[in-house]
Amino acid sequence: MDTVEQGANAHEHHHGYISRKDDYLKRLRRIEGQARGLQRMVEDEKYCIDILTQVSAMTKALQAVSLGLLEDHLGHCVVEAARTGGREADEKVREASEAIARLVRS
Amino acid sequence: MDTVEQGANAHEHHHGYISRKDDYLKRLRRIEGQARGLQRMVEDEKYCIDILTQVSAMTKALQAVSLGLLEDHLGHCVVEAARTGGREADEKVREASEAIARLVRS
Amino acid sequence: MDTVEQGANAHEHHHGYISRKDDYLKRLRRIEGQARGLQRMVEDEKYCIDILTQVSAMTKALQAVSLGLLEDHLGHCVVEAARTGGREADEKVREASEAIARLVRS
Amino acid sequence: MDTVEQGANAHEHHHGYISRKDDYLKRLRRIEGQARGLQRMVEDEKYCIDILTQVSAMTKALQAVSLGLLEDHLGHCVVEAARTGGREADEKVREASEAIARLVRS
Repeated sequence: MDTVEQGANAHEHHHGYISRKDDYLKRLRRIEGQARGLQRMVEDEKYCIDILTQVSAMTKALQAVSLGLLEDHLGHCVVEAARTGGREADEKVREASEAIARLVRS
Repeated sequence: MDTVEQGANAHEHHHGYISRKDDYLKRLRRIEGQARGLQRMVEDEKYCIDILTQVSAMTKALQAVSLGLLEDHLGHCVVEAARTGGREADEKVREASEAIARLVRS
Repeated sequence: MDTVEQGANAHEHHHGYISRKDDYLKRLRRIEGQARGLQRMVEDEKYCIDILTQVSAMTKALQAVSLGLLEDHLGHCVVEAARTGGREADEKVREASEAIARLVRS
Repeated sequence: MDTVEQGANAHEHHHGYISRKDDYLKRLRRIEGQARGLQRMVEDEKYCIDILTQVSAMTKALQAVSLGLLEDHLGHCVVEAARTGGREADEKVREASEAIARLVRS
């Protein structure tokens, strides 16, 4: 906790979600594909409601990614900070809460 | 309601949010008032869009309550469980994550 | 459309949702009851996650009310304005869209 | 892609959003870029909270696309159906309301 904070060394410091990295990458590639599919739909002037349905599906997929990342974050960074204790723990809780608020409001 | 206010036994059971109890109660009373105000608006057949604006305000107020409760929960129950460690910590993280998912999806 | 615009006379002008007024009032009374239930839960210091579950349920109930009101509004006011045509229609569409945006973002 | 997909003739059938097609395509390309950026962040094991912030930004961008498409849809298809009248209007209103509900819930 005292040294590398923000990524300096990917080998020494992994942020918890590393174990499911491949899963996240696969989902994000699929989401990227959905973004391309939406462009084709607009290009081809598909029916507006069908496009909206696709946007909802894509939003849900993104949401699932954030909820997964958040759970990983709580289970790793926040739990670890809680064990360290003191201000570190308070800060991590506040930071996670702000991320949750952004998520809920978006 | 008339007797033990702060939780039969503060040592055995305090759920973290106790310190801000009055604040939460005040907000929830205001939200209850908004629910009554909405009934009057429907009763008086106010313009639909104005009612929707009030519903949005009330939803935001509710959301603020949940985000506050969640932060308290993370800062108390989850942090405490993290210190205890083991399965207790895992369970609290999973439980909190499920609550966050419900919040994000509602 | 030329006279009473924003409620002046409830007898002459009802905003479309009148037919389901009782249904909306019933739902809103239930929502008011949920707000009171939440106060009791906080008062009794119930477990934070259980309170959050109730808040999610209440948010969903509110959302269902707004979606119902919005559908009524589209089916009455917007459709009527569309028939009248011209700027009236454009304004109603913009106004409805803004209400939808507030709803989606709340 | 090559032939008639959703309506014989683009001149006879344009779904309303055609005028802002380029704007939508530009936004969707940017969203596709955000999806690729997120993959890089996961690949490089960036800090979880920073990834969540990006996901929130991307969700908001997607939401803005749906709200725009929905407004176009109301202003064109729904208004047109309202003028045609009868079951056509009812169906379009119901269909739009269902799309709004999916949007609000996602």
